[in-house]
Amino acid sequence: MDLQIIGFGVIGQGFAEVLARKAAFFKERHDLEFNVVSITDITGTAHDPAGLDLVEALRVMEREGAVIGYPGAEKMSGVDAVREVEADLVVEMTPSNIETGEPGLSHMKTAFKEGKHVVTSNKAPLALRYRELVEMADSKGVHFKFEASVGGAMPIINLARENLSGDEVTGISGILNGTTNYILTRMKKEGLPIDTVLREAKELGIAETDPTYDLEGIDTASKLVILANAIMGTDASYKDVKVEGIRRVTPEAVKLAAEDGYVIKLVGEVADHHMEVSPRLVPKNHPLNVDGVLNVAQLKADVAGEITVVGKGAGRVETQSAILSDLIGIAKKTA
Amino acid sequence: MDLQIIGFGVIGQGFAEVLARKAAFFKERHDLEFNVVSITDITGTAHDPAGLDLVEALRVMEREGAVIGYPGAEKMSGVDAVREVEADLVVEMTPSNIETGEPGLSHMKTAFKEGKHVVTSNKAPLALRYRELVEMADSKGVHFKFEASVGGAMPIINLARENLSGDEVTGISGILNGTTNYILTRMKKEGLPIDTVLREAKELGIAETDPTYDLEGIDTASKLVILANAIMGTDASYKDVKVEGIRRVTPEAVKLAAEDGYVIKLVGEVADHHMEVSPRLVPKNHPLNVDGVLNVAQLKADVAGEITVVGKGAGRVETQSAILSDLIGIAKKTA
Repeated sequence: MDLQIIGFGVIGQGFAEVLARKAAFFKERHDLEFNVVSITDITGTAHDPAGLDLVEALRVMEREGAVIGYPGAEKMSGVDAVREVEADLVVEMTPSNIETGEPGLSHMKTAFKEGKHVVTSNKAPLALRYRELVEMADSKGVHFKFEASVGGAMPIINLARENLSGDEVTGISGILNGTTNYILTRMKKEGLPIDTVLREAKELGIAETDPTYDLEGIDTASKLVILANAIMGTDASYKDVKVEGIRRVTPEAVKLAAEDGYVIKLVGEVADHHMEVSPRLVPKNHPLNVDGVLNVAQLKADVAGEITVVGKGAGRVETQSAILSDLIGIAKKTA
Repeated sequence: MDLQIIGFGVIGQGFAEVLARKAAFFKERHDLEFNVVSITDITGTAHDPAGLDLVEALRVMEREGAVIGYPGAEKMSGVDAVREVEADLVVEMTPSNIETGEPGLSHMKTAFKEGKHVVTSNKAPLALRYRELVEMADSKGVHFKFEASVGGAMPIINLARENLSGDEVTGISGILNGTTNYILTRMKKEGLPIDTVLREAKELGIAETDPTYDLEGIDTASKLVILANAIMGTDASYKDVKVEGIRRVTPEAVKLAAEDGYVIKLVGEVADHHMEVSPRLVPKNHPLNVDGVLNVAQLKADVAGEITVVGKGAGRVETQSAILSDLIGIAKKTA
């Protein structure tokens, strides 16, 4: 199967690394071979119908930090690469821009127009234009999978759709942002104010330089809306979610909660067509009480009752678990 | 798709109930229709190629407690029913006999010989003769699925195989027995000795009259070995598991553990080809620390890291979630 990688930052490079490292496993376990015919970043596109050398591509990135440094690479944009390079599937891993959904949105739409399957970790296009994208993929008869867009390594979308296929999911709640969960966990353990903990998180690389989307709950809202759309069949944008972030959570509130047997968590919840993200009191021995950078999602299902899944919310390597599972799923269905 | 139900106790009747109740959902969501052409219990078999009336069958059970009371039912055994009644798939739900695996083992083997798919909740045959059954199904080109045999509504086998298809699972640990987890939870909360809590659990119907297999860890070992075989490709019987139950757990030990920030849980673990069930100290805020009758399983995967799934470990209705997901999975693959 011929793949195109669009977006070659931390997650894109992690994908190339895992794909190269596990080639024998894919062949042996699944009888699948993946051939990366193009890699695009903001500087250009490396492409070769015979397949790029992934180890060389990673070396180029380490040395020059730009795909254009790969031998023979051209100043070709992502949209042009999707349009002009022959391939079966596009792995879209550009950064999420929650205002516009670009450039991911254009990459995905172009891929569908070209009859290419899409696997993505990019949540913005899905949090803004879910229905449109899904319908476009359907109308072109191609697969569109996005497990990695929510909760990194936490397999929740495919679980709900495939492993709970006899159930109707009536509610979803979860902790979908590792940065804020790390901050709240440190506040609880150390009794520190949010600003102190945030500084520490930035130093450790857990929080971004501008952590606004995390702290304000926008990132959680984006992921929540993807879950609601994908699992419960709603047609919403992240702007439909009522959002309150964690900026007003004080050490005193955290301490008072602890005394009563609760922890404060930034919880996203869908129930009765209402979507909300806010700091909530969670009982200490509730499955939603997971610490650090873990993510957790709980589904309410009519037959199974409550099912909870916990996994790493992010990570250069961990996120590839979701990407690979989507990729292998499509490869097997289209074999 | 024509189904046969073998075993019509609590779980079998729960299946009939959910199948009848959700018929419109299966049709609408999955475009599937299930037709139950026979139901067998120890008293006999009701069968009708046009499909049995499930509501009537449940009424007969409530009134007479035996399938033989269904109009036209015969004294036909499970093996004979599988052999003689035309059908596509056998849903095997007889009680687990961990010494012999019977009668489930014979039902499954007969089904494979007849070229019928099997979905089961019956762990004994799988804990004793896993490889033989899987190879027999493979050689006959039929599907064999058993998500419900471990952890009731907790979707762990299909999750590991399908949603972590790009991963290699290198370790499994979990709390796989709801009865002992309930007992340990009560001991912790009330500071009571095991005998007192066990009496209470029996009164509530959470523990069976003879809870030996639960307390001694045999039930956990059986489920652990199914997970190891199905997910990690081992070929083991539950007798290969080193087992220690919870009978020697004292209220003092539970209290001491709590003072150090731990809880005592009956944990099954597979690591480095070693399988063990024993009471373990689990840190209070570890994902494995789930209370009451919940089950939990944690997978160590080479790409995803640790993934944890929590769900109801048993239940007349909840278990059907796993059965239905297996059933729908097969129906879609063979459509």
